[in-house]
Amino acid sequence: MRLIAFVNDQGRPALGARVDADHLLDLTAAGAPATLDEVLRQGEAGFAELRRTLDRATRRVPLAGLRWLPPVADPAKAFAIGLNYLDHAAESNFEPPKYPVVFQRYRSSWVAHEQPLVRPRVSTQFDYEAELVAVIGKGGRHIAPERALEHVAGYSIFNDGSIRDWQLRTNQWLLGKNFDASGSFGPEFVTADELPEGAKGLRVQCRLNGQVLQDANTRDMIFDVATLVSTCSSAMALQPGDIIITGTPSGVGMARKPPVWMKAGDVCEVEVEKVGVLRNPVVDEAA
Amino acid sequence: MRLIAFVNDQGRPALGARVDADHLLDLTAAGAPATLDEVLRQGEAGFAELRRTLDRATRRVPLAGLRWLPPVADPAKAFAIGLNYLDHAAESNFEPPKYPVVFQRYRSSWVAHEQPLVRPRVSTQFDYEAELVAVIGKGGRHIAPERALEHVAGYSIFNDGSIRDWQLRTNQWLLGKNFDASGSFGPEFVTADELPEGAKGLRVQCRLNGQVLQDANTRDMIFDVATLVSTCSSAMALQPGDIIITGTPSGVGMARKPPVWMKAGDVCEVEVEKVGVLRNPVVDEAA
Repeated sequence: MRLIAFVNDQGRPALGARVDADHLLDLTAAGAPATLDEVLRQGEAGFAELRRTLDRATRRVPLAGLRWLPPVADPAKAFAIGLNYLDHAAESNFEPPKYPVVFQRYRSSWVAHEQPLVRPRVSTQFDYEAELVAVIGKGGRHIAPERALEHVAGYSIFNDGSIRDWQLRTNQWLLGKNFDASGSFGPEFVTADELPEGAKGLRVQCRLNGQVLQDANTRDMIFDVATLVSTCSSAMALQPGDIIITGTPSGVGMARKPPVWMKAGDVCEVEVEKVGVLRNPVVDEAA
Repeated sequence: MRLIAFVNDQGRPALGARVDADHLLDLTAAGAPATLDEVLRQGEAGFAELRRTLDRATRRVPLAGLRWLPPVADPAKAFAIGLNYLDHAAESNFEPPKYPVVFQRYRSSWVAHEQPLVRPRVSTQFDYEAELVAVIGKGGRHIAPERALEHVAGYSIFNDGSIRDWQLRTNQWLLGKNFDASGSFGPEFVTADELPEGAKGLRVQCRLNGQVLQDANTRDMIFDVATLVSTCSSAMALQPGDIIITGTPSGVGMARKPPVWMKAGDVCEVEVEKVGVLRNPVVDEAA
């Protein structure tokens, strides 16, 4: 299934399943929960019920003009992984990490597909980062790598938008990675069964105003999805709806000569093969 | 007011006000919200109503045997500040920071007063860190330093328990700072009017099994509470209930020769003058 969180005609959150290139079927109108978060908490039974709901759903909604929501409404934890492609570690002047590098993104730091990314007042160094997202289905602690993919319900896409001067002015990246509306998440959630195991071998691109600036493949991650799940779960119990934003390949704006920064009027697209295209316009923060 | 979150006789969360050394009055039983989070969202009106509720509250509960809860049930954001005392930066072999160093602690990483801290299976390097906590009342973005204390509703205490090898094995500290039940928060929330402005000039101590291992004063923070609030709000809107864990002074176990690590059977106490004593036993993670 390819699930889409959106705002329905009544202004309420709803969950749909995409049925062709241009339409979804409203699952919430047919009795499903209003958020993917709730389905994830129900586990495999939740997804089984969702498939039955899809069979009887009748309300077709065009994607044109849809008000998209981030696929997971409110993850308890959003782990973002740094320096997870060799060529990106090198262009950033960091050593390749021996263990996964993990930081947090807050819910307030991202918007949905087609919503504007906001370049803040306090910096012009607004950079893009194309990334695959893994969404945790079954929670757990001390998950072995060889069982870890059983805990991943599906995948999506993230633009890990970064305010570079704020990210790098201290040794901890949190502030520069968490400006309000500086990243994006979507467009849809693709259940794991629709993709290669561990979402390996998928092309990842970032395009700014149509120009390809990042172009890589998920098989080149230093730490694959199973390793990331296992490592995080060694420290803390994972919960349904937690997300792992798996890191970006080379080609970021900071490493270009001259640097490329996003600005008002730009359109940034992140594509992950078989997962989708996450597109956002850029605006300036209101004065 | 000195507010205490606790589990009542019916097993439900409740909010009380401490009225002497040994008792609280149950405010929730007298009609107040069950969590401080809700009061904080109501703003100054919420605290005014809480004071009226206190006047008519009659249900006295002894603190002996109380099941404490963390003062804020579920902060949207828990900013932890690193290297915020000169002597601690030096003992940790870091340069004193030019800007506040910020990382995240998840809700799952802390327990309440008197609950056990858990030393994990995967490490023995379990360290204590005594810290003052500032709790955001009024939210906002781009808060000027000179107005920042208007946004702080009150203060509490945190033991920023850290798994040092995991914290330092990559350049981002998140995993080592977020082991389940590795930190603690409490015992109570003290409204800002009960303390010196900005909670300055308060002695901070950590005692392990009665031995004083940290002993400093909040006036020695590199970045004071107002600066921390202002800086975080430059990146993102603060919300009622967000917390800022303001950093620890020197004397941590990692910097001692030989190092001092917490282990099962220990009792760790963090005291902040006029705020309270946060006490936790240490246990090993279940096998």
